[in-house]
Amino acid sequence: MYVEKPMVVFLDKLASRSPEPGGGSASALVGAVGAALVSMVANLTLGKEKYAGVQDRIEALLRDSEGLRAELQTLIQRDTEVYADVSEAYKLPRDTEEQKAERAARIQEALKKATEVPFRIAEKCLEVARLSETAAEIGNVGAVSDAGVAVLLAEAAAQSAALNVRINVNSIEDREFAESRWGRIEEILEESARLRDSVLRLTYEKLG
Amino acid sequence: MYVEKPMVVFLDKLASRSPEPGGGSASALVGAVGAALVSMVANLTLGKEKYAGVQDRIEALLRDSEGLRAELQTLIQRDTEVYADVSEAYKLPRDTEEQKAERAARIQEALKKATEVPFRIAEKCLEVARLSETAAEIGNVGAVSDAGVAVLLAEAAAQSAALNVRINVNSIEDREFAESRWGRIEEILEESARLRDSVLRLTYEKLG
Repeated sequence: MYVEKPMVVFLDKLASRSPEPGGGSASALVGAVGAALVSMVANLTLGKEKYAGVQDRIEALLRDSEGLRAELQTLIQRDTEVYADVSEAYKLPRDTEEQKAERAARIQEALKKATEVPFRIAEKCLEVARLSETAAEIGNVGAVSDAGVAVLLAEAAAQSAALNVRINVNSIEDREFAESRWGRIEEILEESARLRDSVLRLTYEKLG
Repeated sequence: MYVEKPMVVFLDKLASRSPEPGGGSASALVGAVGAALVSMVANLTLGKEKYAGVQDRIEALLRDSEGLRAELQTLIQRDTEVYADVSEAYKLPRDTEEQKAERAARIQEALKKATEVPFRIAEKCLEVARLSETAAEIGNVGAVSDAGVAVLLAEAAAQSAALNVRINVNSIEDREFAESRWGRIEEILEESARLRDSVLRLTYEKLG
């Protein structure tokens, strides 16, 4: 598990010619950093008298952000696994017609599975962006810049995951599957971009 | 050094109520991830016959991206140290007029030093964004999505660092210093945003 290894091990391997980890894992990590910053704002608001009126909402915020962080940390690893499955499918023999058909079917199956991971990363990052808005609105104003950083990272991570969905859907023959996934990605990117603009504006307003 | 500890240690500490690491360190990490992705594109282009005509430029690209990655990895740590200096200055005694003056001077000095770190992170992230453009233009087209992710992360990290510059310049009394730093940050954000748009457009074009 990359999250249990030194950070520099992940960065060195990412920089290398090794195909994994790649952009998918990188986007999951950046989404997890965004979620961690929402948690930080929540933790700096919990138990503060000045924010007594929002303690219940802050507790829920922290539960949600820590849940998303755990999921995104798992997806860092998951992306490397589905990538390996695609590579293996491409290496299958193609000497006979039967082998060619079998290989093509296995590639298509692996590509669909490989699409689901960055798709889920994008969905989770949109949720992190939504939580950033709550953090900026009701969280400790002394930590509002961290809510701003959270939305910036969540939006960039969603956009990054979208690029990795795009690579896969381009090779998927099941057009209904490909179009439904890409259609949803476009909605996610639109809402993330809107959240980035509004939360960033609010952050600068509160910073003065 | 956080980069030498398990990634989850950094994420857990970031999520906690501990004031460090904060948004500054998070932006340096995300910039380093972007630089690593530029290196990956370069490494996947080196030695490939199809890209024989750009090998010299790719070698220079890799040297630059690895240099920036090393600097940004150092800045993850550096941001926690200058933050600690600011906190210490605020804790100085203020019982006499002399102590008050001494404390105010120390705070101002620490704030200036604390501004330089996210300022440098933003500058380095702009350089990563520029390298992403080269990677998308001349790098292995099979890895173009990674160049796209690199520019997304570099731009978000520059914007994140800018928020951390903003917090400090707001408290700095030397207006000439504060305005010169913020003026340069505005230029960095403008160029980063332009690069994000153009590199992302090129990435989608090449992905098809």
